[in-house]
Amino acid sequence: MKKLLIANRGEIAVRVIRAAREMGIATVAVVSEADRGSNAERLADESVVIGPAPAGLSYLNHDAVLAAAAQTGADAIHPGYGFLSENADFARKVIDAGYTWVGPDPETILLMGDKSRARQAAIDAGVPVLAGTDGVLDLTGDIEAVADGIGYPLVVKASAGGGGRGIRRIDSRAEVRATVEVARAEALAAFNSNEVYFERFVTRARHVEVQILGDGETWVHLGDRDCSMQRRQQKVIEEAPAPGLPDHLRRRMRDTSVELARQSRYAGAGTVEFLYDPDRQEIAFIEMNTRLQVEHPISEAIAGIDLVREQLRVAAGEKLGYTQDDISFQGHAFEFRINAEDPDNRFMPSPGRIDALELSGGPGVRSDFGFSAGQTVMPFYDSLLGKLIVWDEDRERALARSARALAEIEITGIKSTVPLMRRLIALDDFAAARHHTTYIESVPGLLGEPV
Amino acid sequence: MKKLLIANRGEIAVRVIRAAREMGIATVAVVSEADRGSNAERLADESVVIGPAPAGLSYLNHDAVLAAAAQTGADAIHPGYGFLSENADFARKVIDAGYTWVGPDPETILLMGDKSRARQAAIDAGVPVLAGTDGVLDLTGDIEAVADGIGYPLVVKASAGGGGRGIRRIDSRAEVRATVEVARAEALAAFNSNEVYFERFVTRARHVEVQILGDGETWVHLGDRDCSMQRRQQKVIEEAPAPGLPDHLRRRMRDTSVELARQSRYAGAGTVEFLYDPDRQEIAFIEMNTRLQVEHPISEAIAGIDLVREQLRVAAGEKLGYTQDDISFQGHAFEFRINAEDPDNRFMPSPGRIDALELSGGPGVRSDFGFSAGQTVMPFYDSLLGKLIVWDEDRERALARSARALAEIEITGIKSTVPLMRRLIALDDFAAARHHTTYIESVPGLLGEPV
Repeated sequence: MKKLLIANRGEIAVRVIRAAREMGIATVAVVSEADRGSNAERLADESVVIGPAPAGLSYLNHDAVLAAAAQTGADAIHPGYGFLSENADFARKVIDAGYTWVGPDPETILLMGDKSRARQAAIDAGVPVLAGTDGVLDLTGDIEAVADGIGYPLVVKASAGGGGRGIRRIDSRAEVRATVEVARAEALAAFNSNEVYFERFVTRARHVEVQILGDGETWVHLGDRDCSMQRRQQKVIEEAPAPGLPDHLRRRMRDTSVELARQSRYAGAGTVEFLYDPDRQEIAFIEMNTRLQVEHPISEAIAGIDLVREQLRVAAGEKLGYTQDDISFQGHAFEFRINAEDPDNRFMPSPGRIDALELSGGPGVRSDFGFSAGQTVMPFYDSLLGKLIVWDEDRERALARSARALAEIEITGIKSTVPLMRRLIALDDFAAARHHTTYIESVPGLLGEPV
Repeated sequence: MKKLLIANRGEIAVRVIRAAREMGIATVAVVSEADRGSNAERLADESVVIGPAPAGLSYLNHDAVLAAAAQTGADAIHPGYGFLSENADFARKVIDAGYTWVGPDPETILLMGDKSRARQAAIDAGVPVLAGTDGVLDLTGDIEAVADGIGYPLVVKASAGGGGRGIRRIDSRAEVRATVEVARAEALAAFNSNEVYFERFVTRARHVEVQILGDGETWVHLGDRDCSMQRRQQKVIEEAPAPGLPDHLRRRMRDTSVELARQSRYAGAGTVEFLYDPDRQEIAFIEMNTRLQVEHPISEAIAGIDLVREQLRVAAGEKLGYTQDDISFQGHAFEFRINAEDPDNRFMPSPGRIDALELSGGPGVRSDFGFSAGQTVMPFYDSLLGKLIVWDEDRERALARSARALAEIEITGIKSTVPLMRRLIALDDFAAARHHTTYIESVPGLLGEPV
């Protein structure tokens, strides 16, 4: 691998450029017209403007990205997260055009992208799943009886969905048929497939996940993460390892995730996502993400391994060169997503010029930002400015360090979610890890109102 | 410990404030009139202006510092490095006034501050020393014969010196008496003591050192460092662990340093400095510094332990709570001292307003800076703006990451040593760890001349 094109923008483009540069790999940034002058463009060795601001005309445009690769003589493409990262069709085109695709093969992306097939693969690998239909719901059968068998509440999910989209809750037998029909119609509109399936619904669940890494011959995990602090199913704070998880469940979650990777002969970095039900003390498979996650740095922090470097090494045909026994975990890490949004005004996006961007420093503090002072946040994309990652010897200290680091950050010119982060980590429930995926909306004063 | 006064300025004041804040200890910054508006003042809970810019009238003024402590109700004082950090007289006053002194007791400071007594203490602890006089040179004896016995070249050193000051080289018997007299006169003028001693001179030596930590009952080391990249005996790049050191020497250096700390019942953080002679494959004691070092973050990076936190815990009477066996070392770290100096113009200080200060980020990168964009570097103090600390899994990768991180730093408005750092790490001799303490001046084009 001599020259890598990064088919993404913002902090993740910067992140991949950094790893490539350290490995002596030249980098090509593709940018939309709106992202001219961005840090990704500034830090890359070369850049190509691939189209207008709307992502469909630039970052999601297969032909434009492939043309930029051809034009610059790149020999590999890293998709980052979002955009084309889990697009099997694009991955296939990349490979067919002779480039190295930094990610698992298209067949694995397809398998894990089909939620009912992925659920079956999980079952085959011994990964615990929620009670539900094995495979796609058979509409010709007695679906009320199937629902009764699972118990209420349950959810009907789009097979082609993912990331929290395409989900409807069913609370009683009477709602089953009508809700399934609504879900099928929505799924058809959103994902071009009306296949759906049932799963038991877990109230007050925690979101936990396992970071997987494989080279097609050896598979390891880099520990687990908890991403339960969410707003509208979007993660806002993540931590590693997951707090308060019983040892036997942590072990089972890690081991079966590695087994799932092994059975699909996974090559690259991936994440197996789980629900953890603290009341029942159970874990259950949600889905597998066949790409780098936003929150990958907290796993890097506790394992001391650079995940993007490992992705690039594996994509270039190198072997990991280590096994699970060689990996040791140290301390605890948090990640805070700093968005250009106003947390005191219904999270309205806050585009505009960043007048000052004073980040924090000192021991255990890492900043992954896509922006610098003087640059302008455009309204066309997600509002992630960057991420603050904080490590310390244990969770309590990492939390105290996070408070210190968040207190130091100063962003002027635009609104950011930094004030919300300061409020969240000051909560007793967060210190005690009693939060769950719908917790954040349940605390009066946290969102939208003055505190 | 409830409220800590930091008797220092710049990046080290910020460093100590960060640790205290994470531990829930309130902080008091003392600042000179020139340092009003500094980050130390901004980040501390309270601040007191203690005098005009010249350090003798503020940071070195015992009474002014103690008055600020009394005025604010502080119960502990951290001296940082430099200034009053190795002043036994000040430490005694702090303790006598009822404050907690964050450092070893004044008797230990005095012992290690007297270079000939410290040498004897090293010998007693089994620390290897260079051939030389045991104790102070006896002027009534045959000093030429003593010199002959050690061999030429040798150095005559002021007993009260340290940090590279008060040293003269002697190349032959004929120079002995005259040089000793010059050295005595200089020592008297500089240190108020004309006691001197002899030591063998090592050409092309490397500077290596061991980080020690003790609570008065348990002593551990946090590994070793190499600080051989120096300019005029001032460290410019440090790394941990020391590269290319034979295992048996590394072990001996670490073990005897711990023994030296044990024999002085050391409490707090300290550093035992050594020369390493790669030709003879020998190590030899230089001195022990009874304070935090500028380069402490690289030991924190490989050991995962916050040294300032440990200093504060020990000063507050806590025990370490771990032993050497509990400490594991991971990876390799570099520290780059970023000064407001012009490396292409004889290192002329470059005070003035910092227009932009764009630091680097991403995995393994830590920034400890005392300044922010928009602030002004005053000409009254040393020119250290801050430090870039880079960690990675091994030395080769840490070096590549350092190059990447240094490439990202942008400082405008003043000159900095960043361009010199980029040149130094690109040297084959540095990659191969063939540099030594006088190496930097020996490479044409590195200093003062355009490259």
